[in-house]
Amino acid sequence: MRDYLPCLDWLKQYDKPAFMGDMLAAVIVTIMLIPQSLAYALLAGLPAEVGIYASILPLIVYAIFGTSRSLSVGPVAVVSIMTASAISGIAEPGTAAYLQSAIFLALISGLFMLAMGILKLGFLANFLSHPVVAAFITGSAIVIIFSQLDHLMGVELAGGNVIAILASALGAIDRIHMPTLALSLFALGFLFGTRYGLKPLLEKFGMAPKTASLLAKTGPVLGVVITSLLAYYYHLDEQGVALVGQVPAGLPAIGIPAFEQLAWKELTIAALFISLIGFVESVSVGQTLAAKRKYKIHPNQELIGLGGANIASAVSGGYPVTGGFARSVVNFEAGAVTPAAGAFTAIGMMITALFFTPYIAFLPKATLAATIVVAVMSLVDFSILAKTFRYSRTDFFAAISTLLATVAFGIEAGVMFGVLSSLAMHLYKTSKPHIAVVGEVPGTEHFRNVDRHHVITQTEILSVRIDESLYFANAAYIEEQLEELLATHPDVEHLVLQCTAVNEIDISGLEVLQSINDDLALRNIQLHLSEVKGPVMDVLKRSDFIDKLTGDIYLSQHQAVHGLSRRQNWQEEASTGYL
Amino acid sequence: MRDYLPCLDWLKQYDKPAFMGDMLAAVIVTIMLIPQSLAYALLAGLPAEVGIYASILPLIVYAIFGTSRSLSVGPVAVVSIMTASAISGIAEPGTAAYLQSAIFLALISGLFMLAMGILKLGFLANFLSHPVVAAFITGSAIVIIFSQLDHLMGVELAGGNVIAILASALGAIDRIHMPTLALSLFALGFLFGTRYGLKPLLEKFGMAPKTASLLAKTGPVLGVVITSLLAYYYHLDEQGVALVGQVPAGLPAIGIPAFEQLAWKELTIAALFISLIGFVESVSVGQTLAAKRKYKIHPNQELIGLGGANIASAVSGGYPVTGGFARSVVNFEAGAVTPAAGAFTAIGMMITALFFTPYIAFLPKATLAATIVVAVMSLVDFSILAKTFRYSRTDFFAAISTLLATVAFGIEAGVMFGVLSSLAMHLYKTSKPHIAVVGEVPGTEHFRNVDRHHVITQTEILSVRIDESLYFANAAYIEEQLEELLATHPDVEHLVLQCTAVNEIDISGLEVLQSINDDLALRNIQLHLSEVKGPVMDVLKRSDFIDKLTGDIYLSQHQAVHGLSRRQNWQEEASTGYL
Repeated sequence: MRDYLPCLDWLKQYDKPAFMGDMLAAVIVTIMLIPQSLAYALLAGLPAEVGIYASILPLIVYAIFGTSRSLSVGPVAVVSIMTASAISGIAEPGTAAYLQSAIFLALISGLFMLAMGILKLGFLANFLSHPVVAAFITGSAIVIIFSQLDHLMGVELAGGNVIAILASALGAIDRIHMPTLALSLFALGFLFGTRYGLKPLLEKFGMAPKTASLLAKTGPVLGVVITSLLAYYYHLDEQGVALVGQVPAGLPAIGIPAFEQLAWKELTIAALFISLIGFVESVSVGQTLAAKRKYKIHPNQELIGLGGANIASAVSGGYPVTGGFARSVVNFEAGAVTPAAGAFTAIGMMITALFFTPYIAFLPKATLAATIVVAVMSLVDFSILAKTFRYSRTDFFAAISTLLATVAFGIEAGVMFGVLSSLAMHLYKTSKPHIAVVGEVPGTEHFRNVDRHHVITQTEILSVRIDESLYFANAAYIEEQLEELLATHPDVEHLVLQCTAVNEIDISGLEVLQSINDDLALRNIQLHLSEVKGPVMDVLKRSDFIDKLTGDIYLSQHQAVHGLSRRQNWQEEASTGYL
Repeated sequence: MRDYLPCLDWLKQYDKPAFMGDMLAAVIVTIMLIPQSLAYALLAGLPAEVGIYASILPLIVYAIFGTSRSLSVGPVAVVSIMTASAISGIAEPGTAAYLQSAIFLALISGLFMLAMGILKLGFLANFLSHPVVAAFITGSAIVIIFSQLDHLMGVELAGGNVIAILASALGAIDRIHMPTLALSLFALGFLFGTRYGLKPLLEKFGMAPKTASLLAKTGPVLGVVITSLLAYYYHLDEQGVALVGQVPAGLPAIGIPAFEQLAWKELTIAALFISLIGFVESVSVGQTLAAKRKYKIHPNQELIGLGGANIASAVSGGYPVTGGFARSVVNFEAGAVTPAAGAFTAIGMMITALFFTPYIAFLPKATLAATIVVAVMSLVDFSILAKTFRYSRTDFFAAISTLLATVAFGIEAGVMFGVLSSLAMHLYKTSKPHIAVVGEVPGTEHFRNVDRHHVITQTEILSVRIDESLYFANAAYIEEQLEELLATHPDVEHLVLQCTAVNEIDISGLEVLQSINDDLALRNIQLHLSEVKGPVMDVLKRSDFIDKLTGDIYLSQHQAVHGLSRRQNWQEEASTGYL
């Protein structure tokens, strides 16, 4: 029970300092979340209020079930563009079918997360490697920035992938809506200015760095207020500037959503991707922040918390949510110490829904687009490419292919490509393992590769180390390689396989060992194993391989080689008549 | 050049004994292939002559490019049912579209094989593990047997999967066509009788066992002749027994096939499966027979040979072919010593096409169905289930799930399921590797698991062996496990990771090592590595990990522990004033 309700742990120690910390963080995060929730709803192709709805109930549910004390759950950029990309081929933005599809996505990805959490499948997220996730986030951020070009320019553009958008934007240069562009440039300048200039400015006026840093986060909300006022006083809508328009006031209705004639198959597949990416994004920021405060988050319970949050979003008219990078960092720095900060943020968003929606009507969409661009700029990070390029070609390949696939073919293709390319690389490597002839390092009992170390070898004993488990994908390859080695070592009487790196022998591996054993028997070569691990030995004992093995199984390579060369000497001495 | 034309090797040594051996084998195989080629064409849903066409040119092309000296290429049961399953959803049997689709399948799977051979991708077949292939063959044989129930009972039945066929057959019991059933039972009895009774009978009459065994292979052709005669004299067609009917005489026309409005996308995917399964079936029987004569076949050149054979089949009006199990064994036992036996068999089939087709018209389809049933009975083999059950649960799971998926969902689903389940099992295992605390085996420099061996350990040094490469799928798991180990060993001052089984450290693994290193540094615990392999060390040197490592990298675990405990002693002595 306690495992499934982490809030019981922190609630019983909840005190005034914790309350004050959480409250301050909630105020700052609410101010940040108001423009973000509207902007990400726009990014997802949804009405502005859907962003607000997704920022109320989900936060409360996560506060009850989640294990991160810093995570700010709600609408985030990457999941919003994934939502848009999943629905845009199925329904027209602005229609009831589009909204229902978004709610359905939240419900199904919530159920996926919940099921994965209960079944303790959180480890599946490990198959998304860090380079793949980093490259995917950067790729998505680039796609998101390009997707906002239409709102920034005030023209209709083709969507889908970056190349199509860019081509369409170049063709539309003579149709740019100048008042919208002017407003966009003002909003971009203002947002970049407050982002990078406000903190130093406030510090110059004597404000403490931490306070200055937090106050600087109000930039987007100031941008929203200023451009809304501009739109109101100068009647910018009459000049053709797109505004958000009427937003219904009040809290969302709670109830089981009605779904009619949805493309449930496509949406279910998309929900699977959304839940995986949402989980990975949330867990990685949650883990980073938890490490700083020396506590742990529990990935499977996180899945339950995020799953509950998404189901809560669906029953309250919202769309898929997860823990966001930037907002969680702000929440953490502003002093949030428990998930209650999230619940307080929800109260802030409720107040917004109840009292502030009339003012949102005058908010220009260009301002929201500028907010999105400035927010996701921080996600664009090419350092993973440089890092993997130095370190390993396969990691680099996985990263660059994920980035290119995301930009060229879109969000889902990017994830798929990333996961499949890293798995394929791993399988390819294990299917052609490194195999080394080894010899004894002088003065030790240790055996190393003859090509890399000065070691002692015997002509009649061939010691070979196979650097991989023996399993179906490499069994045939290993057999071939051993045969080639034997062909170049014609005087061998004993083949000793040092099994230090053999972590598993499946039935295909066993068959190959048996075939090598039988084959060598005909050529009067004995096959021996050394340093077989306990779990592997347990399995071998269940077959008749050990009975049929022409040689022995030795505790260590040292014992194998010394035992065999002593035996060899006796035999030679016996044959020359010394014994 | 010589590499791509293996026939140059054997042709220059070709002599009279080789010719005699190949000729005798060709006669026996031709007698076996005539009914099989007709029967497998029926199984594939194709006109009888297509089976004959697929048994002429493909055999000649394989003789030129193939490396097996015993393989009998041509129509085979599994590939025929795969052909039927690929096309049956797309076109009606008997239509031009159906035939064109079959020819297209042969062309595309031929091109796939050729491309894989030239690109040296033969190793991909290793991803089909032996238990999966064995279970798939057994599952397919069961599907094939059920698929012949309609011809044996003389009624129309639903197709697809075994359950549907069985249900439909039970519903059709009152509609069974009795003359057809009687003929089927006669044919089945005759074929089983000659298969298992003819050889002992002939031996009883003093015939040499080998000759008796080869003569017993004529059973199917005798069955064909006898039931055709019955059909001819008793006008069985007038009583409603389905006969093969008019078969065009003469050799197939050779030319580039015309394809119109084919479902090329679905067929291309099916061709990929057919080429993979065809290749695996052919290579496994080829390798078994080659091993008996002490030569090797070359998988990549086999792909070229089989690819060429399939393209040859397509341009001469045939359908997908490969090397068959049973026929290749007969070819081998009848004394074939070079691929010329296949070319001679092709001549036998040409003679059949030119002179014997008029007699085929009276052949009952029930006889062919009985031939198929008896032929594939030998493929049904549940021993792989027993074997894997004893040896390993994961291998057993892969085998049983492949078998069940093949029977329940059909041929393609079976292969897919088999490959994916074995890969998933492998990834799952490597994502949660075995981790052992190790200690020194007394009197040696060897370190083993403390839970399995009596070993010497130190309280201040924790020696841990990780039994897997450090890569993205297990990096997080390994970090967790190490933290748990450290929590239960509070007095540790040195953590030594013995890297004997770490065959690779990718960037995710490196990040985890770095994070462990930093984390331990805060707790005044030094991290050391020992027995790092050459290739892994090369990669580590490309990062800054070695500079940041708080401890050292030792050649062997022995040197690490003894170096560290000596250092420890000095420090203790120093702190107590002895130094």
